[in-house]
Amino acid sequence: MKLLIVNGPNLNMLGIREKHIYGDRDYAALCRMIEGWAGELGCEVELCQSNHEGAIVDRIQQAYFDGTDGIVINPAAYTHTSVAILDALKAVQLPAVEVHISDVNAREPFRRLSYAGMACEAHFVGMGFEGYRLAMVYLVEKIGNGELGIGN
Amino acid sequence: MKLLIVNGPNLNMLGIREKHIYGDRDYAALCRMIEGWAGELGCEVELCQSNHEGAIVDRIQQAYFDGTDGIVINPAAYTHTSVAILDALKAVQLPAVEVHISDVNAREPFRRLSYAGMACEAHFVGMGFEGYRLAMVYLVEKIGNGELGIGN
Amino acid sequence: MKLLIVNGPNLNMLGIREKHIYGDRDYAALCRMIEGWAGELGCEVELCQSNHEGAIVDRIQQAYFDGTDGIVINPAAYTHTSVAILDALKAVQLPAVEVHISDVNAREPFRRLSYAGMACEAHFVGMGFEGYRLAMVYLVEKIGNGELGIGN
Amino acid sequence: MKLLIVNGPNLNMLGIREKHIYGDRDYAALCRMIEGWAGELGCEVELCQSNHEGAIVDRIQQAYFDGTDGIVINPAAYTHTSVAILDALKAVQLPAVEVHISDVNAREPFRRLSYAGMACEAHFVGMGFEGYRLAMVYLVEKIGNGELGIGN
Amino acid sequence: MKLLIVNGPNLNMLGIREKHIYGDRDYAALCRMIEGWAGELGCEVELCQSNHEGAIVDRIQQAYFDGTDGIVINPAAYTHTSVAILDALKAVQLPAVEVHISDVNAREPFRRLSYAGMACEAHFVGMGFEGYRLAMVYLVEKIGNGELGIGN
Amino acid sequence: MKLLIVNGPNLNMLGIREKHIYGDRDYAALCRMIEGWAGELGCEVELCQSNHEGAIVDRIQQAYFDGTDGIVINPAAYTHTSVAILDALKAVQLPAVEVHISDVNAREPFRRLSYAGMACEAHFVGMGFEGYRLAMVYLVEKIGNGELGIGN
Amino acid sequence: MKLLIVNGPNLNMLGIREKHIYGDRDYAALCRMIEGWAGELGCEVELCQSNHEGAIVDRIQQAYFDGTDGIVINPAAYTHTSVAILDALKAVQLPAVEVHISDVNAREPFRRLSYAGMACEAHFVGMGFEGYRLAMVYLVEKIGNGELGIGN
Amino acid sequence: MKLLIVNGPNLNMLGIREKHIYGDRDYAALCRMIEGWAGELGCEVELCQSNHEGAIVDRIQQAYFDGTDGIVINPAAYTHTSVAILDALKAVQLPAVEVHISDVNAREPFRRLSYAGMACEAHFVGMGFEGYRLAMVYLVEKIGNGELGIGN
Amino acid sequence: MKLLIVNGPNLNMLGIREKHIYGDRDYAALCRMIEGWAGELGCEVELCQSNHEGAIVDRIQQAYFDGTDGIVINPAAYTHTSVAILDALKAVQLPAVEVHISDVNAREPFRRLSYAGMACEAHFVGMGFEGYRLAMVYLVEKIGNGELGIGN
Amino acid sequence: MKLLIVNGPNLNMLGIREKHIYGDRDYAALCRMIEGWAGELGCEVELCQSNHEGAIVDRIQQAYFDGTDGIVINPAAYTHTSVAILDALKAVQLPAVEVHISDVNAREPFRRLSYAGMACEAHFVGMGFEGYRLAMVYLVEKIGNGELGIGN
Amino acid sequence: MKLLIVNGPNLNMLGIREKHIYGDRDYAALCRMIEGWAGELGCEVELCQSNHEGAIVDRIQQAYFDGTDGIVINPAAYTHTSVAILDALKAVQLPAVEVHISDVNAREPFRRLSYAGMACEAHFVGMGFEGYRLAMVYLVEKIGNGELGIGN
Amino acid sequence: MKLLIVNGPNLNMLGIREKHIYGDRDYAALCRMIEGWAGELGCEVELCQSNHEGAIVDRIQQAYFDGTDGIVINPAAYTHTSVAILDALKAVQLPAVEVHISDVNAREPFRRLSYAGMACEAHFVGMGFEGYRLAMVYLVEKIGNGELGIGN
Repeated sequence: MKLLIVNGPNLNMLGIREKHIYGDRDYAALCRMIEGWAGELGCEVELCQSNHEGAIVDRIQQAYFDGTDGIVINPAAYTHTSVAILDALKAVQLPAVEVHISDVNAREPFRRLSYAGMACEAHFVGMGFEGYRLAMVYLVEKIGNGELGIGN
Repeated sequence: MKLLIVNGPNLNMLGIREKHIYGDRDYAALCRMIEGWAGELGCEVELCQSNHEGAIVDRIQQAYFDGTDGIVINPAAYTHTSVAILDALKAVQLPAVEVHISDVNAREPFRRLSYAGMACEAHFVGMGFEGYRLAMVYLVEKIGNGELGIGN
Repeated sequence: MKLLIVNGPNLNMLGIREKHIYGDRDYAALCRMIEGWAGELGCEVELCQSNHEGAIVDRIQQAYFDGTDGIVINPAAYTHTSVAILDALKAVQLPAVEVHISDVNAREPFRRLSYAGMACEAHFVGMGFEGYRLAMVYLVEKIGNGELGIGN
Repeated sequence: MKLLIVNGPNLNMLGIREKHIYGDRDYAALCRMIEGWAGELGCEVELCQSNHEGAIVDRIQQAYFDGTDGIVINPAAYTHTSVAILDALKAVQLPAVEVHISDVNAREPFRRLSYAGMACEAHFVGMGFEGYRLAMVYLVEKIGNGELGIGN
Repeated sequence: MKLLIVNGPNLNMLGIREKHIYGDRDYAALCRMIEGWAGELGCEVELCQSNHEGAIVDRIQQAYFDGTDGIVINPAAYTHTSVAILDALKAVQLPAVEVHISDVNAREPFRRLSYAGMACEAHFVGMGFEGYRLAMVYLVEKIGNGELGIGN
Repeated sequence: MKLLIVNGPNLNMLGIREKHIYGDRDYAALCRMIEGWAGELGCEVELCQSNHEGAIVDRIQQAYFDGTDGIVINPAAYTHTSVAILDALKAVQLPAVEVHISDVNAREPFRRLSYAGMACEAHFVGMGFEGYRLAMVYLVEKIGNGELGIGN
Repeated sequence: MKLLIVNGPNLNMLGIREKHIYGDRDYAALCRMIEGWAGELGCEVELCQSNHEGAIVDRIQQAYFDGTDGIVINPAAYTHTSVAILDALKAVQLPAVEVHISDVNAREPFRRLSYAGMACEAHFVGMGFEGYRLAMVYLVEKIGNGELGIGN
Repeated sequence: MKLLIVNGPNLNMLGIREKHIYGDRDYAALCRMIEGWAGELGCEVELCQSNHEGAIVDRIQQAYFDGTDGIVINPAAYTHTSVAILDALKAVQLPAVEVHISDVNAREPFRRLSYAGMACEAHFVGMGFEGYRLAMVYLVEKIGNGELGIGN
Repeated sequence: MKLLIVNGPNLNMLGIREKHIYGDRDYAALCRMIEGWAGELGCEVELCQSNHEGAIVDRIQQAYFDGTDGIVINPAAYTHTSVAILDALKAVQLPAVEVHISDVNAREPFRRLSYAGMACEAHFVGMGFEGYRLAMVYLVEKIGNGELGIGN
Repeated sequence: MKLLIVNGPNLNMLGIREKHIYGDRDYAALCRMIEGWAGELGCEVELCQSNHEGAIVDRIQQAYFDGTDGIVINPAAYTHTSVAILDALKAVQLPAVEVHISDVNAREPFRRLSYAGMACEAHFVGMGFEGYRLAMVYLVEKIGNGELGIGN
Repeated sequence: MKLLIVNGPNLNMLGIREKHIYGDRDYAALCRMIEGWAGELGCEVELCQSNHEGAIVDRIQQAYFDGTDGIVINPAAYTHTSVAILDALKAVQLPAVEVHISDVNAREPFRRLSYAGMACEAHFVGMGFEGYRLAMVYLVEKIGNGELGIGN
Repeated sequence: MKLLIVNGPNLNMLGIREKHIYGDRDYAALCRMIEGWAGELGCEVELCQSNHEGAIVDRIQQAYFDGTDGIVINPAAYTHTSVAILDALKAVQLPAVEVHISDVNAREPFRRLSYAGMACEAHFVGMGFEGYRLAMVYLVEKIGNGELGIGN
């Protein structure tokens, strides 16, 4: 099983960026943790991070062609402004779940709207890095037992 | 470690109620699963379900006095209408997480507002019964390692 | 055929409560009239009135199990604030109709929204006590000829 | 006793128009049914249907002069857009009740506003053709016992 | 100089219609008064009243061709709902002033919006029948001294 | 009969201020015209202009004590922001009419709201200086024939 | 193949009406052009223009019975205010396309809402008279190749 | 004279609940203080606190029958969500005043709306426990001198 | 202890102004009562009333320098429109409480917003003149026992 | 004559993406059709598709320098979120028309807003691939006869 | 060159007022700094500060007559509530720039609206006292080189 | 001292783009002016302009690592749509000021919202190219005297 983990803008600044919200571990640490969890779950992961909305759209589209089974996405700032990422997720029809490190509902009102979330099965919000792990557990289980797959 | 699992109105009708949204397993099955997961996680659980807003407030208040370490709450319909449950959660200051079986954001607009959620650390939305398990995993881990406790 | 007649908060104060809106006949009189009409229509009725939202949810759920064929509901103040009663009506899937003694649209703006009404087949608004009779006539006819039944 | 039954635009297309909403009986059938019910109730009815807002205003005004005792009105599309019909109903001060075949609150949001309804005693919503019968029953009873009349 | 006086729906019911708002003089009285004032001002008037939005549009268009110098319009209920009358006034480009017998801003909120008023030079609101006279005085003076004319 | 003519802020700048909106005659000219019209109508006028909201409130209050029969008010910018002037007009209960030189509804949206207008009998909008004359004609006639007076 | 071309209020004033928006060719010219294009496309056209909402509803209903294959409609001012025309288009279920000579989105905000457009397949906006031709080309092609027909 | 003091949900958690807002004295202390003040004022008090909306409605209704002269109510969280309590207060028509310990307008926006307050004579907001005392002083004085009583 | 009592516009018209709302005692009577209560409470009062927003700002600023211990303010109409008074209260940081004679929430919607109230500790609403007394009692007690003072 | 055809994000996924909305022909097919139509119309076309907002801005700017005569743009998801594309179109001042394959007004509300459309002459909405052809026909004709060109 | 520096309400309380927002230098210090900068820029300044909206309007009007070349205005609280100051600035047509010491957009939402700003060329926001200096630099330069002057 | 000057989309089209708004000097001229001002101020500048939101985010992040002391940003169209740029500015915590050449508040309403501005110390709006100079003056002074630096 192959999962794509998509991270949006400024997540590469973890450890530097607003530590009272995002904690002080950096993006490399997150990547290592995700790879470790993938090992435990027996699945393959590909990680991508970009500050470019278009690059994220490109990467999601590519997942349609490269055998990806499911997507874990934290669109960060693009959560609230990108219809293009929403449309990409709907285009590829892969099972997708949304992750947010912080509790986006408890911040500025404009962070309450999630376009990408409209194409996601499930939502893990406010759990720090642990949210990625639980999202992976969820996807692996649901894809593994056939409850989720392309187009449903 | 002791967790309180609070279920709001009509969740006792699982298996009968809108099966295309909630699935066809009943409330007793959910309870058995939660107890099984508690066994695996090595924690104690107390389950409560009520159709009465006041009874849910009473039960949350009681948790302040009976040694509960954390709360998993699915306030169901009261999610969107109960300030009293929000105030109860803030009063007891126990670590709490919110669970929704269905993807509430994808249903009627009035289901997008969560009062109780304003007092919760993390949110598990749209994962079916599995959301309870992941919420329990999350709370046990965070309380276990001291990241969460009364008042933080 | 068995109908459940559900009356919400403060309807037990009929005859005392805001007589310019609700008239001066009391709740006992309403009950006697409903029982009389049931006799004429050849159906069984069960009457319930409660000031407790949760008790109304409980009673609607019970109707699923006790052979009730249809529900006439005047949720009174809970019309405008209770998602739990809406969800209960959707859970039991019994034919339901909504009754309001006064013309709720002609009062405060917050009385224009009806949650329970979203799960009702038909709406009888502003007809005084007569609304209950016409609602019963309607339900008995539609259930009698098979146009309404559980789940449609 | 004489009742005026006013039907708004496109109701002459019953049986052709959106059958999943309005059913497959045609306007002539509705007229025959209304006339039959009038016979049973021992009242006179005059039926009018028009696609012209102005014609409906004209007809309501005429009722002031021709001895009409009450009005049953289904303004159809003009429900939501015609202040002129509202003003006509207020001008003639005849007892009026509003009927809608479908459950207008459950359709597009712009169908939730009823101008004409602001001048109506009572509202019968979502009962199909049966709504006309119950409205007639209601008016005949209330006018008959003197509870309703010109100007109250 | 020739003025067209346009009256919208239900103004033909003056003297019958909501007397606490519109007074008890009837439409014929209003017409006689307007004709009397025209005599005093030395101008010609043509009066029209219709309950049909389209007929009002037709009449305004005709004014473009029949030598009318200015328009006094009380669109009544169509004030608030008719873009067609607004467009007709803009099409003919004749000097136009708006009259309302009652103080429309002090009634229901939906009466605060005036489409026709967007094409009118001046607005006489809340003056009873006297508003027509003052509007005529205004138009005759302004057209007489060349301050108003077709297209300005 | 004695009328008070109240002019709000910046009307003393007429002839200088935004001439495309207010014309090029100055405030002194307006005063002379008003005095001339008063002569023709056989009434006394007192003119006041102030840029101070409080001074306008003071002057309206004084009218209660000094035998003023009616008020013509153009509150200018305070139209849209002064509840104090509204309350002053309601306190003195003198017949009052509102005048605006320009068509305030056709300018910025914040100019559509009139607080002072809520205490005025009638509204003359968009008629240039002529509006003052017509307002005086209206008040003199209505007060003269007893239709308007203190408290009605 | 037979097309109905429906034109709403004030389009008969083309050439006179707001030329900076609608151009200086008149309605007769538009009719001749449409008839010419019909000739080129080998289809039959019937043209109707009315200032009466009800007459437009009548005409659309008639199309259901007279063998019309498709409708090109420019509802003009009724675009924004007529639910009755929307309901008529939905009643007859003929393929329909919407045309606007001017760019309605670039004018007053109330011109952005199109009721009739909710029942149209396609929308040609801002193309002047040419919009009618392209709409006819579109309908003839789509009806001709069977992609559009009654009820789809 | 007999006063009913009604306290809503979570007020029984005073001393534990959000101390920076509600202070650190507990509910028993509040009760003792209220009883002390009653002694000073020479009136009888009955105290009730409930987390159940329905129980509060029940208790207010009971006051109609048990000789209560006035009500001091702090509906806590139900302030903002309970139409049923509003209706109960209107049903019994006893003089009622609203108390809030904290300054509810300075907290979350949803705490600005008070349903119960719509049936209260006066409002004491932000005064801590002292608000109860001043409310009792106010009621005792106004009921004592006959300014307040049932139905006014 | 020295209190400043600030009264806003039109309160000098008490006894004349809208008596059904404000009662028939005049402003001098209010002043005498306040001075009497000050005597009973053993504190000094200074009274000011002005129709000028700027004069109220000036007076509040002066309180910073003249040894005032607390402020009771009824900003009347300026409650809803004056940010300057709010800023003055915040500038001087003296303990302040807000008083309204009438129940402002039960009147026009624009009276629901209080700018000055955002800088006040407590709010006494709808108690007539008695509100001033209770506000003085409250301030004297809280300042006396040190709970309130400059800057907290 | 040279036209630039700009396609926004996810249009390269045609044939895969939501086929019930966009059909099953792929992007290459669309390109071939556009090139074919260009041949028929005797104009040159350049096609570009990008998932990157910035790349679309770059391409539009380039059109200013490379002799492009007009632009056909389907901004897809960027329709609703990109002010940068709007500004680019305004910067280059080339004649531009907007195309949407689906009827964007009939989908989610956030798809109703078009920023790019604010800089477009005409709008072709809901016509499938045919919309591109008609847009090209329109532009070629209008540019050919001089009605459209740089800056008008 | 002569500049008028206008300061609104409570700016005379600088150094006392909310120091965390406005700093601890007082108004006299600001005046000295402004005079010093004027010396460096070789221009004359007149400073005015008032808590009275009307006085500010008076002073701006006077600038029209006394040879003022430009205005630097910090309307403070009147920024958000005064249409009269806006109208005064538009009346005199002198080049004007707006200064705010604090970042008004980052405070309460009602501080986001600036009426006066609608008549200002440029806006200096959030720069502390330095904003006045930069505003003076800007005006002196632009007036000096003829880019700004009366009426443009 | 090193400043980064960030320019958003379409600013490279200065001199071509909407000259009535942006003037006729081109982007190269702006760059030369900025470099000249840097020379005068004795600071180093790096200029970047991009039409790509992601590239701007990348560049701001880079500033964290390359010794930049402050940022002057004109996000152009991305001002109103980019949360990603806001988050980047908050991530790097460098002193930042916002510049807009035109008066964005006086244009379309969607240009009133600034996301990037939420992370900026100060705002220079409507001053043409001069705004960049004043922003640089401001930053150099404040960073030079230690009032601004990383993280405050």
